[in-house]
Amino acid sequence: MDRFTIISSDCHAGLPAQQYREYLDPQFREVFDMALPIQKEMTDKSEQVFLLKEINDQWRAGVEAHLTGAWDYDKRIEVLNGDGIAGEIIFPDGITEQNAPPFGAGLSLPTKDIVPELQWAGARAHNRWLAELCSHNPVRHFGVAVCPLLWDVEEGVKEARWAKENGLRGMMIPAMTNDFEGYHHGRYDPFWQACEDLGLTVCFHSGPGPMQQFFGNDFPMGDVADYPGAVGIYISEVFFWTYRPLIFMLWGGVFERFPKLKCSVTETGQGWLLPPLLRMLDHHYHDTHFSAKLGDYRSHLSMSPTDYFRRNCAIGASCMPREDAEGRHAIGMQQIMWGSDYPHPEGTWPNTPGDVLATFKGLPEADVAAMLGGNAIDFYGFDRAAIDAIGAEVGPLRAAFAA
Amino acid sequence: MDRFTIISSDCHAGLPAQQYREYLDPQFREVFDMALPIQKEMTDKSEQVFLLKEINDQWRAGVEAHLTGAWDYDKRIEVLNGDGIAGEIIFPDGITEQNAPPFGAGLSLPTKDIVPELQWAGARAHNRWLAELCSHNPVRHFGVAVCPLLWDVEEGVKEARWAKENGLRGMMIPAMTNDFEGYHHGRYDPFWQACEDLGLTVCFHSGPGPMQQFFGNDFPMGDVADYPGAVGIYISEVFFWTYRPLIFMLWGGVFERFPKLKCSVTETGQGWLLPPLLRMLDHHYHDTHFSAKLGDYRSHLSMSPTDYFRRNCAIGASCMPREDAEGRHAIGMQQIMWGSDYPHPEGTWPNTPGDVLATFKGLPEADVAAMLGGNAIDFYGFDRAAIDAIGAEVGPLRAAFAA
Repeated sequence: MDRFTIISSDCHAGLPAQQYREYLDPQFREVFDMALPIQKEMTDKSEQVFLLKEINDQWRAGVEAHLTGAWDYDKRIEVLNGDGIAGEIIFPDGITEQNAPPFGAGLSLPTKDIVPELQWAGARAHNRWLAELCSHNPVRHFGVAVCPLLWDVEEGVKEARWAKENGLRGMMIPAMTNDFEGYHHGRYDPFWQACEDLGLTVCFHSGPGPMQQFFGNDFPMGDVADYPGAVGIYISEVFFWTYRPLIFMLWGGVFERFPKLKCSVTETGQGWLLPPLLRMLDHHYHDTHFSAKLGDYRSHLSMSPTDYFRRNCAIGASCMPREDAEGRHAIGMQQIMWGSDYPHPEGTWPNTPGDVLATFKGLPEADVAAMLGGNAIDFYGFDRAAIDAIGAEVGPLRAAFAA
Repeated sequence: MDRFTIISSDCHAGLPAQQYREYLDPQFREVFDMALPIQKEMTDKSEQVFLLKEINDQWRAGVEAHLTGAWDYDKRIEVLNGDGIAGEIIFPDGITEQNAPPFGAGLSLPTKDIVPELQWAGARAHNRWLAELCSHNPVRHFGVAVCPLLWDVEEGVKEARWAKENGLRGMMIPAMTNDFEGYHHGRYDPFWQACEDLGLTVCFHSGPGPMQQFFGNDFPMGDVADYPGAVGIYISEVFFWTYRPLIFMLWGGVFERFPKLKCSVTETGQGWLLPPLLRMLDHHYHDTHFSAKLGDYRSHLSMSPTDYFRRNCAIGASCMPREDAEGRHAIGMQQIMWGSDYPHPEGTWPNTPGDVLATFKGLPEADVAAMLGGNAIDFYGFDRAAIDAIGAEVGPLRAAFAA
C-alpha cells in the first residue's frame, strides 16, 4: 500500500433544522413547529454569548458551498475524498450549532428544562436520518446514535437495539449526568450490557459543561456582561467534563463487569489532561498512605484504571497538534485516533492534507498509519479490507510523510 | 542559621463539637442543642460511608493523647515543637471530621440544606474561638476565618473586617459555588476589595466535592452500596474541585482588578494537576486557532493565567511527596509551601522529622528553605525575624538535609 487509510474519528452531520420535521414521529410535529423559531433564536443567541457570530459568519462565507456536506451525501463524499479520508465516525451537530437535532438532542444534551419525551423524539429523528445517510455506504460511515439515556435506561436499551438493527454502531450518551446518578451506579448496567452484547461503542463527545455556572442561570438568553472570562472558563473546563464520565465508569467497575464494552472520548485535547489523569487514577489505585483513611474502594477492580482504559477505551483526537503525535506513547499509542472535525471551524478541513503532514511528517510510518486510521479501524471495527480499498483511492501518499 | 524555619501551610484546629456552644451567639444555642446529636450522627455515618471508621479509630488509638492539640493550646505547641514547626496556617476541622464547626461551617461548606443564618453563626463561633487560640502567639499562628461567602457578600465583607480586627489573617471561602454565581462574577468584588485592602489572604482548602453525585442524593445518610467506587471518584476529583475557583478567578480578571489580592489553594496534590492545568490555561490565553470561533474572552486580562498565578497565588503542599519537591520548578519554585496537615491522619505528623528528610534531603539548601518555610513567610506575611527566632529553637538542622 502506498497510501495511508485515514479514518476521521470526529465528523459531524446534521440537517438544516426544519428538515428534521419529516423524521419526527407525527405526534411531535406540532410542538416542533412551535419550538423551531425558539430553537433558532437560542442558537443565534448562543453564538452571540460566545461572541462568535461574526467569526462563524466569516468562516461560513469562505466555505459555504461545501458546508452542505453536513447533510448532502454527494457533497459529503466530495469533501471526504478531498480531505483524503476513507472512513468517518459521525456525531450530531453539523455546521457549528446550526444543524443540531430537535429538542436539544445534540452534542450538549441533556439540555435544561426539556421534556424527556421531546428529547427522545428529537434523538430518534436524528438517528433515523443518520441511519439513512450511513446506508449509502456502511463501509465508510460509522454513525453514532444520540441517546438521552439519563431519562430512562430501558428506553436507552430499546434505542440501542434500534440503532443496531438500522446500521448505526455507536451510542452517544450525555457526558453530564447532573442530578441523575453518575455512571458508576448500577442502574445503567442494562445499557452497558446491551451495548456490549450488540457491539455498540459508547461515545462521549466534548461540548457539554455546566453552562449556567459559566454564563449565568439564564444562559443562553441572559446578559453575559456580568460573567467576564466565561468563555475562557468554558474552554478550560470542557475537556474535563467530557473525560469525567470515564472517571465514574472506571472506578465504578463498569469495565470489570462488561469487559468487552468499548467507550470512546472525542475532541478532548488528549495531550494536556489524559496522561496526568491516568497517572493520578493509578496513583489512587496503588497508593495506600494518603487514601488509607478512606477505606476500600478498589477491591471490586481486578485491574488499574489505566489498564481498563488501555483495554476498553480510545480517544477521538480532533484538531490534533504535533505535540500530541510526539507524545503518543504517554497518551497511548493504540488509543489515539486522529479526527478532522468536519464541518466545524476549529477542525482541519478544508486544510486537512497540509495539517496531517504538519502533525505527522517524519514520525515512524507504522505509528502514523495507526493514528491516522489503523487504531480507529481496530477500535470501531471497520472492515479493514474494504476500507483499505477506499484508502488506496483517496488516502495521502505515505512517501510524503517520510522524514 | 543552622536550622530551617518550618511553616506548616496546612494545619487544622477545632473544638470538640459541644464546646462550640459557648462561642455561638446566644440565640443560636437552642437550635445548636437540637442539631448536635444529628451532626454527630451524620459525622459517624459519613465515616462509615467512607468505610473508614475502623481506620480512623485505629489512627486515633495510636496518637490519641496528642490529638487534643486540635484545641488544647499547650498540647498544640508541644506537637508543633516536636514536629520542628515554627509557624502554621490554621484551617478548620480538627481531628478528621470530628471537630468541625457547627452547622456545616467547616471545610466542606457550603453544606446542602443548611439555613444561611445558621451557617454564618457556626462560622462565627469557630472564628471567635480560633482568634482566641491564635492570640496566644500571633507570630506562630496564622488563623484562617471561615466565611460562607456565597449566601451574602456584604456579610462576607463584615466578617473580613471582624477577622482583621481580631487577628485572623485569611478567609476560607467555599470552593464549590454550586447554584450561586461563580467567582468570575462581579458580585464578589466588594469581598475581593476588602481582602486586598485589609491584607487578608483568600484561602481554598480541599475537601468539598459534589458528594451527592458520588454517594447519592441522600449522602451522608443513604446506602452507598449502589455507588461502587464512589470514594475512588471522590479522591480522583477532589483536587479539581479545589483548583476550580482559581480557574474562575483567573479568567474573570479578579487578579487584574485586585492586583494585590492573595489567594492560596491547599492540600491539592500540587504535582499531578497544576503544571498541566497552567499550561492549558496559558494555551487558551495564547491560542488563536482552536478557540477563534469562541471570540474574545481575554482582552480584559493584561497577563496570562500563569502570570497571575505566579504573582498572586501559592500552594499549600500537604503530604508533599518527593517527586513534587523534585518537580518544584514546573509547579512553581516560589509557590510551594510545605504542610504537615496536623492532626489529620494522611499528614506527616507524628512522623514529620523523618518525612521532611525523605521529601527534601539532598536538594539545594535555598530551595529547601523556601519550600519548608521561606515561601510561606513571604506569601502569608509572617514576621521573618520573629518566626526565624522560633525556627532557630525548634527547626531541624540544615546539615541533616545535605546530600
